[in-house]
Amino acid sequence: MLDQAVTNARANRERQLNQLFEFLRIPSVSALSEHQVDIERATQWLASNMTEAGLEHVEIISTGGNPIVYGDWLGAGPNAQTVLVYGHYDVQPVDPLELWISPPFDPQIRDGEIYARGASDDKGQMFAHIKAVEAMLAGGGKLPVNVKMIFEGEEEVGSPSLEPFVVEHNDLLAATSGLISDGRIVDADTPSLVYALRGMTYMEIRIKGPSRDLHSGSYGGSVHNPAQLVAEIIASMHDRNGTVTIPGFYDNVCPLSTEERQALANVPHSLDQWREETGLDAPWGEEEYTILERTTARPTCEVNGMWGGFQGEGGKTIIPAEAGAKISMRLVPDQDPQEIARLFEAHVRRFIPADYTLEVLEHAHGRPAITPIDSPESKAAARAYQAAWGKSPVFTREGGSIPIVATFQKELGAPVVLMGFGLDDNVHAPNEHFRLDHFYKGIETIIHYYHYLGD
Amino acid sequence: MLDQAVTNARANRERQLNQLFEFLRIPSVSALSEHQVDIERATQWLASNMTEAGLEHVEIISTGGNPIVYGDWLGAGPNAQTVLVYGHYDVQPVDPLELWISPPFDPQIRDGEIYARGASDDKGQMFAHIKAVEAMLAGGGKLPVNVKMIFEGEEEVGSPSLEPFVVEHNDLLAATSGLISDGRIVDADTPSLVYALRGMTYMEIRIKGPSRDLHSGSYGGSVHNPAQLVAEIIASMHDRNGTVTIPGFYDNVCPLSTEERQALANVPHSLDQWREETGLDAPWGEEEYTILERTTARPTCEVNGMWGGFQGEGGKTIIPAEAGAKISMRLVPDQDPQEIARLFEAHVRRFIPADYTLEVLEHAHGRPAITPIDSPESKAAARAYQAAWGKSPVFTREGGSIPIVATFQKELGAPVVLMGFGLDDNVHAPNEHFRLDHFYKGIETIIHYYHYLGD
Repeated sequence: MLDQAVTNARANRERQLNQLFEFLRIPSVSALSEHQVDIERATQWLASNMTEAGLEHVEIISTGGNPIVYGDWLGAGPNAQTVLVYGHYDVQPVDPLELWISPPFDPQIRDGEIYARGASDDKGQMFAHIKAVEAMLAGGGKLPVNVKMIFEGEEEVGSPSLEPFVVEHNDLLAATSGLISDGRIVDADTPSLVYALRGMTYMEIRIKGPSRDLHSGSYGGSVHNPAQLVAEIIASMHDRNGTVTIPGFYDNVCPLSTEERQALANVPHSLDQWREETGLDAPWGEEEYTILERTTARPTCEVNGMWGGFQGEGGKTIIPAEAGAKISMRLVPDQDPQEIARLFEAHVRRFIPADYTLEVLEHAHGRPAITPIDSPESKAAARAYQAAWGKSPVFTREGGSIPIVATFQKELGAPVVLMGFGLDDNVHAPNEHFRLDHFYKGIETIIHYYHYLGD
Repeated sequence: MLDQAVTNARANRERQLNQLFEFLRIPSVSALSEHQVDIERATQWLASNMTEAGLEHVEIISTGGNPIVYGDWLGAGPNAQTVLVYGHYDVQPVDPLELWISPPFDPQIRDGEIYARGASDDKGQMFAHIKAVEAMLAGGGKLPVNVKMIFEGEEEVGSPSLEPFVVEHNDLLAATSGLISDGRIVDADTPSLVYALRGMTYMEIRIKGPSRDLHSGSYGGSVHNPAQLVAEIIASMHDRNGTVTIPGFYDNVCPLSTEERQALANVPHSLDQWREETGLDAPWGEEEYTILERTTARPTCEVNGMWGGFQGEGGKTIIPAEAGAKISMRLVPDQDPQEIARLFEAHVRRFIPADYTLEVLEHAHGRPAITPIDSPESKAAARAYQAAWGKSPVFTREGGSIPIVATFQKELGAPVVLMGFGLDDNVHAPNEHFRLDHFYKGIETIIHYYHYLGD
């Protein structure tokens, strides 16, 4: 059964790739309302593809926001395990567009990499799951476990509809474990299983001072410049060591144990790799932690955007009436995203003069998560990577956020396996890409995972 | 001769206004290269209007940048005084366009005010000079002084071509005094003569860190975020009192004498007026100085624009690869604009990590200036205001910068009278306006000024 599924998968590679290209051509950008029609197209395309792959009960389910596409195969019977697969069909915006070598929604293969927005995050990885099940079911085949799949369209805007959906459809989604491919492995030769994720609180501040832009010659020196005020607030959020200085920020952070620091020290993660990926020489940040710890096991606070006043060509001599910034914080256990939002706002508010207005927006929040590494699911996943990659995976933490992991654990009581196939891949940046061989290895890893999990 | 000129001016008000509207309809924005064609149109229109007004030797003179329009009337003879009039036909950009009640280049009159970009700064004020000379020359009339006029098209981008032009055309521009209307009076009932102007150094910094936008989940905590770095630099430039903290910034500032502080205390300038104009309650800045002193007699440092990362709708989780800011400093005697540029750059450079790049642009620089208030020119100007406004002017300082004043004083050895007719007028902001009665009073003030100066 295993051999037949792998044979089926390999025989269909051209077709799998053509279908992925179709999927990547749909510009399903969730952050921009003008792409709403593409979100709808993506759900129709997905539902049709899932049905063709052999999934049953395929349904496009409305939410308060973008729809969630559901499908399942329950042929293993009520006594078998049930795996709930999660992915997202929405993608990041593409700006700055001028830095893309090929258009973001016209997928191309160069040097063994698929270049397109969403190639790695997450269309390429989630699509591997549909193709793995298709290969196992082809020609009357079966899976040793039941599978349920949900694909959402709001991951890149903080998944506002997902948690309510999971709560509401608790019965439909009942599962013995979760499975998500929306991440990276350590390097092309070192598969890895992520056992912890950071959470997130994503805030925006907008400060209004004078009633209009003022001439900086006539009013300069008498008005607290709103752009300067935003700069002062941003500058106040870190000390010189890169430690966050928002009062109370670290209150609920679980200290890293000596054992865990030793385990993380064993994960291959070189300064050279960081240098190559960032284009920089010297890391910044908390000196008392390694780069891997800073980026995965420590909470952070980053300016994602800031603005104020004149940004055009040449000079304009104004004191801008308003200025703002988007600031997101990555969280670790046991920080609470909503408590962090409150601490952030309280900190910012201390800077605001009585005659200025502060608007605070909360774009997204998600809890941090940790998954047991000695569970049957983790062990089956390790065997599956061994089979497809020829090497056992290392266990590591991830700096990014997949809020659904914490939601699954809380609402469904199910452990979640994070089975990433990506590398650095320029996700969230121009020229996003995904290795073609990782797409195919991903399909085979999933096939093996179901096989070992059902053993 | 005086009475006839005033009669001529009053009889032609409708025609003067129609012509001003024609001039205001030309969107001669010097900061944006797409308006180059409008700059050319403005020079053609001006030259034609000046010739029609009776000015001679009218010429559009090329420079390294936008042309300068010259014209003169030298009928008073070689033994009479010669007044060099300066104005600028270029205007500020109009963004944010959506805040304009009527389109910026479609002049309209509402509540006795002309609304248009350039209405006050400086087209309305400079055009009064052409119309004053026209009224004096009409019907074979004469002026008791010679007049030369130059109108430039780069004032709003720092007048890069003007000083070389003045140096090169020293003979053509030879004059016994200068006359400029590009400012404001204290209030509609209180004409004023400005005896000091601030200089300016306008800088832009662009900082590049990582080679591309990075995912803030994967790299957050390990990279000095360029937007944060720009914020830290901006925040470093003032202490909590609003005093500029760039090392050496105040080294050459002439202290304000007790006498001058007393004179400035006599200028009507109320907190209520500041509140009405800014929409704020409480002034910010150096507590040991009055608002008028902070905005006219003290040097300042203002962020005119700043940017970095994602500014669109929603959230994008990146560490931006680059960020920047436009920062201008207003200078007082004896600060040197180029020395200040050096101090600014040295200060910024201290913050830049070795593997980041800093680009520093100098958009403009102009020296601060002070003009004697007991000169014959100042006295004639005071009598002219008295005649047209029915009230003697107060003598005050101005916070803005007109670099040409320092250039005239240095290159031509000529004292410069600053004869403003504007009020606050939203210059450099949406809904710029200019009082219609000030346009007409301006024409009459200029007529009287030439009359008294020639006495």
